[in-house]
Amino acid sequence: MQNFIFENPTKIIFGKGQIPKIGNETSRFGRKALLVYGMGSIYKNGIYDQVTDSLKKAGVGIVDFPGVKSNPVLSHVQKGIETARKEEVDVIVAVGGGSVIDAAKAISAGVKADHDVWDFFTFSKPIKSALPILTVVTVSASASEMNNGAVVTNEDNCQKYCIVSPFIQPAVSILDPTVLISLSPEYSAYSAVDVITHMLEGYFNNTALKTPLQDRLVEALIKTVMESTDIIMEEPDNYNARANMMWSAILGFNGLTTAGMGKVQMPAHMIEHSLSAIYDIAHGAGLSIILPAWMSCMLDAKTERLAKFASEIFHVKGRGSRLLAQKGISCLKLWFESIGSPVSLGAADIPESDIEKIAGNAFALSQVWCYEGYTQDVIIKILMNAR
Amino acid sequence: MQNFIFENPTKIIFGKGQIPKIGNETSRFGRKALLVYGMGSIYKNGIYDQVTDSLKKAGVGIVDFPGVKSNPVLSHVQKGIETARKEEVDVIVAVGGGSVIDAAKAISAGVKADHDVWDFFTFSKPIKSALPILTVVTVSASASEMNNGAVVTNEDNCQKYCIVSPFIQPAVSILDPTVLISLSPEYSAYSAVDVITHMLEGYFNNTALKTPLQDRLVEALIKTVMESTDIIMEEPDNYNARANMMWSAILGFNGLTTAGMGKVQMPAHMIEHSLSAIYDIAHGAGLSIILPAWMSCMLDAKTERLAKFASEIFHVKGRGSRLLAQKGISCLKLWFESIGSPVSLGAADIPESDIEKIAGNAFALSQVWCYEGYTQDVIIKILMNAR
Repeated sequence: MQNFIFENPTKIIFGKGQIPKIGNETSRFGRKALLVYGMGSIYKNGIYDQVTDSLKKAGVGIVDFPGVKSNPVLSHVQKGIETARKEEVDVIVAVGGGSVIDAAKAISAGVKADHDVWDFFTFSKPIKSALPILTVVTVSASASEMNNGAVVTNEDNCQKYCIVSPFIQPAVSILDPTVLISLSPEYSAYSAVDVITHMLEGYFNNTALKTPLQDRLVEALIKTVMESTDIIMEEPDNYNARANMMWSAILGFNGLTTAGMGKVQMPAHMIEHSLSAIYDIAHGAGLSIILPAWMSCMLDAKTERLAKFASEIFHVKGRGSRLLAQKGISCLKLWFESIGSPVSLGAADIPESDIEKIAGNAFALSQVWCYEGYTQDVIIKILMNAR
Repeated sequence: MQNFIFENPTKIIFGKGQIPKIGNETSRFGRKALLVYGMGSIYKNGIYDQVTDSLKKAGVGIVDFPGVKSNPVLSHVQKGIETARKEEVDVIVAVGGGSVIDAAKAISAGVKADHDVWDFFTFSKPIKSALPILTVVTVSASASEMNNGAVVTNEDNCQKYCIVSPFIQPAVSILDPTVLISLSPEYSAYSAVDVITHMLEGYFNNTALKTPLQDRLVEALIKTVMESTDIIMEEPDNYNARANMMWSAILGFNGLTTAGMGKVQMPAHMIEHSLSAIYDIAHGAGLSIILPAWMSCMLDAKTERLAKFASEIFHVKGRGSRLLAQKGISCLKLWFESIGSPVSLGAADIPESDIEKIAGNAFALSQVWCYEGYTQDVIIKILMNAR
């Protein structure tokens, strides 16, 4: 096991009927909140009213800031920073999924900066402070509600980049699994893909020699995500399945499974960011295309780990690690397809002729993230596997 | 899954060579530290010097408070409170295992109270504040370094009772697995028993109907603890095995595995407290006597859970849940014996004729903890299984 620091102070309030607690929790941190949310689905499902009623009762002023889109964009974040400054809010409440929470995080850091917020994403400036953030989660996948990262797309140059800082870690997150019951089958599937990929990146790409504990935690969580998602596809209103998915999503990317793993790389995310930046497809959909393609590319370099994954998750049997590894990749692709997530560029209407352009975009990010070994040629090879 | 709140802000600094960070970390919380430790083993293994050098370098004053014994006692805690007040310390640094950390927690709460600290343990007064606590861990079992509980024995009446409060949660804990290499085989075994029992109490005694995720996490951790302990028994200086044990101990009792389980009872701990209170035996040794005896008593009431435990942990096969359950209990006893932890009262020199006295002591605690179903007769039945 490698040395590590684990610190995750977010307070999680989990369960049915918990959303009305947002007001009192917010009032511990500020008196005037920027209420960040998406395209308005929270008007329809009643969450907007629950949140605003609770904030008003607790005496917290509200500045509405809707309009965060899936794959949140820089220009909208910049507008949020302007609004937050003009209105002099002292706390941010994000109501939504990973996109909304990530936009809120970028706004919270941007408000305190004397330069453009994008400088944080290119790592040219460090985050030194941020407004406190609370979240009410409506889509469970990113774990952004209990971690210190955020991803935003600069739409001018199709750069989907990230920030990481303890200052943007939410103080409080409220998760009511009943909220997920209205989530579409597509987004339920994409969520599962995202959660699984978060964990597999660590499982396949860490610098620790042996991680039996972390491996078992990842395997436990992936089994739970797959089992829950299979149930959700048949019974979208199954509370326990939604609850297991919601808590697994957090545990899969809040630092728990990677603690002790040493340095972890996320190459599938890196390449997927190019897909969602250029084609604005759902992040999970992009990951189900890239992850198996990346795994196939690693057949020789990571044979034993891939074989372990195959036998632990899919109970694949047989002689020869390479064969097991191949079977595991096939099983994963089949499972992604079975829940309705694409496993090829074509299935997402991305033409093969764009591969070079995508690789160029991803390579630029590999430079920002300092990922060695991901030359443009390697990325092209991975993308060719995704045809 | 049941509703829950999860909040665990302790900063964990884990790994080789991390102890010298204690000074700077402590200086964030105070200028004069009560240094709480045990019977002096930290003089021999160099940890005392590492800690005091680091505190001095960081400009933190030190008030020595040694002498915490295994199964820490109230009179010593009271002495610690007096010392802390007289010396006007503003922070506590605990260097030791669960006993030392628990004593430090009791002192930290007691210093702030205008009544005897024992009132907290009988739940007649609530904890309203405490001095900040930092820990350097030398024995991994209790997870006290990352949770909000503490256990102390009132030696006047052999009451081994507990407190639970967010105010006594350590702010920072430093864990260097190399420290464990000098831990005796006996205490390495008792630690494993304690960690496993923490998790099995939740696994067997929760009010949630279905907990597939929590079950898998518990199973993952127990497998890791058993595998690591088997290695440690052969190779006490195996760093990875010690590290896996150290981190598993924390994850097994820091709120992670019980989140969503609803109400959790700890009957094996309840009865064991009487053994270590009356006979001053090691807590883990008491647990390896009580846990299998408790399981045998629950053969009819919890057949399916016991069978699941047997098949997941020991891969026991066969027809009939009751038979599987019985086999699982036998396997657990055998494993406890194999690492050198006792599985009968006799093996710990506790006479059968004392069973009624022990049951009376345990029953008193069951009243304090409001555990229904644990009449004196039931407790006697469990203890009879431990003959």
